Amino acid sequence: MLRVSVVGATGYSGVELVRILLSHPEVKIADLVSKSYVGKDFAEIYPAFRGKLDSVCKALDTAELAQSSDLVFLALPTGPAQKIASELLAEEVKVIDLGADFRLEDVEDYQQWYGSEHQAVQLLDQAIYNIPEIHKKKLEDVQLVANPGCYPTSVLLGLAPIMDKQIVDISSIIIDSKSGVSGAGRGLNIGVQFCQQAENFKAYKVASHRHIPEIEQELSKLCGEKVLVSFTPHLLPLKRGILSTIYLDLLEKVDMSELRKYYEEYYQDASFVCLLPEGELPEIKNVAGSNDCHLNIFLDERVGRLVVVSVIDNLVKGAAGQAVQNMNILCGFEQSLGLSGLRAGV
Amino acid sequence: MLRVSVVGATGYSGVELVRILLSHPEVKIADLVSKSYVGKDFAEIYPAFRGKLDSVCKALDTAELAQSSDLVFLALPTGPAQKIASELLAEEVKVIDLGADFRLEDVEDYQQWYGSEHQAVQLLDQAIYNIPEIHKKKLEDVQLVANPGCYPTSVLLGLAPIMDKQIVDISSIIIDSKSGVSGAGRGLNIGVQFCQQAENFKAYKVASHRHIPEIEQELSKLCGEKVLVSFTPHLLPLKRGILSTIYLDLLEKVDMSELRKYYEEYYQDASFVCLLPEGELPEIKNVAGSNDCHLNIFLDERVGRLVVVSVIDNLVKGAAGQAVQNMNILCGFEQSLGLSGLRAGV
Amino acid sequence: MLRVSVVGATGYSGVELVRILLSHPEVKIADLVSKSYVGKDFAEIYPAFRGKLDSVCKALDTAELAQSSDLVFLALPTGPAQKIASELLAEEVKVIDLGADFRLEDVEDYQQWYGSEHQAVQLLDQAIYNIPEIHKKKLEDVQLVANPGCYPTSVLLGLAPIMDKQIVDISSIIIDSKSGVSGAGRGLNIGVQFCQQAENFKAYKVASHRHIPEIEQELSKLCGEKVLVSFTPHLLPLKRGILSTIYLDLLEKVDMSELRKYYEEYYQDASFVCLLPEGELPEIKNVAGSNDCHLNIFLDERVGRLVVVSVIDNLVKGAAGQAVQNMNILCGFEQSLGLSGLRAGV
Amino acid sequence: MLRVSVVGATGYSGVELVRILLSHPEVKIADLVSKSYVGKDFAEIYPAFRGKLDSVCKALDTAELAQSSDLVFLALPTGPAQKIASELLAEEVKVIDLGADFRLEDVEDYQQWYGSEHQAVQLLDQAIYNIPEIHKKKLEDVQLVANPGCYPTSVLLGLAPIMDKQIVDISSIIIDSKSGVSGAGRGLNIGVQFCQQAENFKAYKVASHRHIPEIEQELSKLCGEKVLVSFTPHLLPLKRGILSTIYLDLLEKVDMSELRKYYEEYYQDASFVCLLPEGELPEIKNVAGSNDCHLNIFLDERVGRLVVVSVIDNLVKGAAGQAVQNMNILCGFEQSLGLSGLRAGV
Repeated sequence: MLRVSVVGATGYSGVELVRILLSHPEVKIADLVSKSYVGKDFAEIYPAFRGKLDSVCKALDTAELAQSSDLVFLALPTGPAQKIASELLAEEVKVIDLGADFRLEDVEDYQQWYGSEHQAVQLLDQAIYNIPEIHKKKLEDVQLVANPGCYPTSVLLGLAPIMDKQIVDISSIIIDSKSGVSGAGRGLNIGVQFCQQAENFKAYKVASHRHIPEIEQELSKLCGEKVLVSFTPHLLPLKRGILSTIYLDLLEKVDMSELRKYYEEYYQDASFVCLLPEGELPEIKNVAGSNDCHLNIFLDERVGRLVVVSVIDNLVKGAAGQAVQNMNILCGFEQSLGLSGLRAGV
Repeated sequence: MLRVSVVGATGYSGVELVRILLSHPEVKIADLVSKSYVGKDFAEIYPAFRGKLDSVCKALDTAELAQSSDLVFLALPTGPAQKIASELLAEEVKVIDLGADFRLEDVEDYQQWYGSEHQAVQLLDQAIYNIPEIHKKKLEDVQLVANPGCYPTSVLLGLAPIMDKQIVDISSIIIDSKSGVSGAGRGLNIGVQFCQQAENFKAYKVASHRHIPEIEQELSKLCGEKVLVSFTPHLLPLKRGILSTIYLDLLEKVDMSELRKYYEEYYQDASFVCLLPEGELPEIKNVAGSNDCHLNIFLDERVGRLVVVSVIDNLVKGAAGQAVQNMNILCGFEQSLGLSGLRAGV
Repeated sequence: MLRVSVVGATGYSGVELVRILLSHPEVKIADLVSKSYVGKDFAEIYPAFRGKLDSVCKALDTAELAQSSDLVFLALPTGPAQKIASELLAEEVKVIDLGADFRLEDVEDYQQWYGSEHQAVQLLDQAIYNIPEIHKKKLEDVQLVANPGCYPTSVLLGLAPIMDKQIVDISSIIIDSKSGVSGAGRGLNIGVQFCQQAENFKAYKVASHRHIPEIEQELSKLCGEKVLVSFTPHLLPLKRGILSTIYLDLLEKVDMSELRKYYEEYYQDASFVCLLPEGELPEIKNVAGSNDCHLNIFLDERVGRLVVVSVIDNLVKGAAGQAVQNMNILCGFEQSLGLSGLRAGV
Repeated sequence: MLRVSVVGATGYSGVELVRILLSHPEVKIADLVSKSYVGKDFAEIYPAFRGKLDSVCKALDTAELAQSSDLVFLALPTGPAQKIASELLAEEVKVIDLGADFRLEDVEDYQQWYGSEHQAVQLLDQAIYNIPEIHKKKLEDVQLVANPGCYPTSVLLGLAPIMDKQIVDISSIIIDSKSGVSGAGRGLNIGVQFCQQAENFKAYKVASHRHIPEIEQELSKLCGEKVLVSFTPHLLPLKRGILSTIYLDLLEKVDMSELRKYYEEYYQDASFVCLLPEGELPEIKNVAGSNDCHLNIFLDERVGRLVVVSVIDNLVKGAAGQAVQNMNILCGFEQSLGLSGLRAGV
């Protein structure tokens, strides 16, 4: 059994990791680390685990983690993961970071968008960014995985099959994304209160969200040219899920059947990504709780544009589920182990 | 007192009309017409009116309406309003149609998008389409008002101030709109059930919604050129409100201060339209229940685009409120009479 | 025009007061006092008021309030209102307290349930507790009104018509109440976050909520005997509204028609309280946003019990609306002035 | 592998059965029968199953089911299951009925509460009603299981440990239950529309719900006396979950520690039922999606009453999950097989 710990276990990505790992047949949960709840029973904070998990939250101690764990997930706000990852890697513990610390290859991008010096520049080269259905990295001998962001995952899965097909005006990409409130985290702020978000909807960080450089970096790699995008995130009055509506100008007239073939071929072996039948609309409720991504494409022939609609669960395929998928690859397990039973209900 | 009736009084736009008209100081509600609830006490269907309104729903009888009413609101699905309006106008009753029947000036547009013959072509010329803050029609001697659609109202209020400024690439307009479930009406269908929409979000009618020709007609008039747009509506898990996020390529570099001046000047006398302070984000909850529109504009300088965000209540400024505003103008009342007290709460 | 100020204007009861007072024809809003937002534009905190209200939040200064105001509403957590009310009354400013500070007549009850010394015991005698439909106080020459609590209002309106009828076993009263999240206030705590309350429901403070002594005090006065009740509040995943389900053992067999007559007579002049037609179920959506209370009674003949169901909006009839109703009485205005236009929509 | 079919597979309990059975290691799904969707791909109706389940809905044909299936779940409205069960049992197919058809032992109770003749009276004797944690039936040689109702499950799990302890006044039991909207089923009616239920809450079928005789039958068996209860169901604005608040007069003073001991002992081997630590409040979100029941008890010493609070997921422990639990017992599998991985998330 792989001994696995979670740092940041009481945040929303953290608890989702715990939910998935607890049913994973090849994993034993070692330590749950939480800054806010040291000494507290995990099941006291998340009573869904009453009678299922007997674990007391610990303070961070990388030396101790190195003893207890073969692999550590970091589910932290950007910043602290840099030093923690360095220490764990030095002790030969594998690390999967769910934050943004190791996603940007160019340290200047990091400094520009995050406004602070990177504390572990030496690790950027060895960190592997991996959406399994796109990058298809084997992860042999890899020590550090930079788990992709939630918005970027929804966008990249929607665009990867056509980025290198010379049919898209790559200067025209506009991404209008909508996320559930869990994406904003569990921190105390007035903006995520029930009375602020129920029956409400708003855009935020218009043209300035930190996932922009991550999306642009990966789209640029996919098509071999520097891509800039417009990106507007919005906050939905629901708990879990992201829907991205993506607009692209087509360089020439393309048939729907040809476009669908690009997607079908690209994802033919991808058990978690589903191009819906023509005309069927992706809905958040159909993927919430699961590691699935549902996609569909729509031709707006009057104006020569393609519209891509993509849905994922921001906490699963957009965070914890994809992290476990990466763990499976890293550790030689079947890629979908512990993930295929997750399925949206009514 | 103006004697006013509502045909389609038990639909969502209808009941909102009743809510507003009941507190309007210059109006007396005459007849409430409802196909589904003939003979039923209106307050039995909408118990919020228990003790406030004593009115039994009637079957449609245009001759009777012509006796009882000076003005009739039609709040119906597209189609039947055409014949009803003809009959009422023949009896010299003024009509404000909240449906799409008289909005499109070109009858071929109607036939193409609605898939049926128009039954009152002779009225299209005399029907006046009026968003008071944009078209500023006086409505003297007008008999028939084509009240604008909900999505078009949110979009046109967002774009009107800059359409004739030669700064926008008019071929680049992309509109990503999100509406509350009341926009889908009160008809019985599985898609608007609580268990289908709570914790859910989806796009629908991608590139094919019937509000597209209405938006294009009015944008074209505003800029003097034929405009085509991309338009994607989405369904939000909330009851009331529309937010439209609109993307435009700028033809040249423009300063934010200049852009804001266009909007401020355009809406300087508009009590219901508010350009928010720079950087402040429009939120549905701040306009829900009111006749207000909140707007803001954002420059995405990296890619040379403008992002406009606009919010309204789809049932008020997007339907019943704007209809009453048009009634006020038509009847020589102060434009905001009976509407200024409507205000969003917590 | 009556010059009115609100202390605690940025809490949920406070903003609801502002919403109502702004449309009140006999009131001019003087000062808005807020501890958390001194110096901030009120419309920046609540953008629904953009363009409607130009007022900067002030720090508390009772001397200044005494100059600016004829009447002050206190919408504060329990405690601080005691000293503030003393100071304002000393300056001959009328006070309506929306908190619990002056509701309990017996200072020992206060100390037992609130766990602290009362700071203005001398005022308890002159404070008038008034649900206008029940207590029917004239409020002439009154300086201090103790505005009733939200849960007690829903319960007392449900029980008042039968408490003195000798038909109820007064030892059997069980009250199961359910409130929207706004009832928990606007303070930062994890429990009122969207992700904690959406799709959730729970009981809280079982058998220990501080509204118990208020309910018991008033029920005892209504029937002339000491009443003890069981009371369980619950938190609903919605913003506004309270529904109370109240169970009572009947001492003898009573006809429904007789019971309904008690309610109809008791509320015959009450424009805000409505006994629904027999069998019709009170629903929160029918009173949300309004100052109305909807009631109905159900006989459970198999077990000899009466079930009373009562709904109000916790922020309106349960707080700000009733406070304005009391202000109207206190100032000689018509009781429903500024309140009758409030009405629930779709 | 056990070959299992579901009749009524597209209703909410049906799809929940499919969700659970699809991950069950000892089950193979044979036929999915749906009256409304004959010939349609199940994944077209519930796209969450796209790529996971390839099954076309069939019309009911009991002879065919007898060929394809070892066991059939009936997830139907009350009535039709009676004849279907008879036919399947005649063919020696085991049946688990999720409806109310075989729950009431006294056929007169059935006729009184359901208002129709029972069509399979001969089966009532052999039908086994089984909440595994209470009745602990072995189900060897059983052919027909009457799976308990959702409200009764929440109530009986809350009361079973103390019904025979001579401490409760059994004439005093009052049950105030609140259910998510999925409990009302998937049929088209205005009452379950999003705009009717979002931000709404109401009681329904006060003192007349059909689960009353089921609750009374089982409580009577538990204590050996005829029990009558007051029962009020309410509709919550959320999709899944039931919370029951139960009030009982105590015959004598009992210590909390003694009461907790009754519950702890009663459920010491029950992996799905959890008595929470003293003072911790059961919340629907902590059991939604799982087969768990969370319970707690509260002493209201001022009035000598006990308050029991119980939460389950109405579609899992209240329907499909408990049905699979019964299937496991019936077929000799481990009781929690395929059910222990279900767990509520954020």
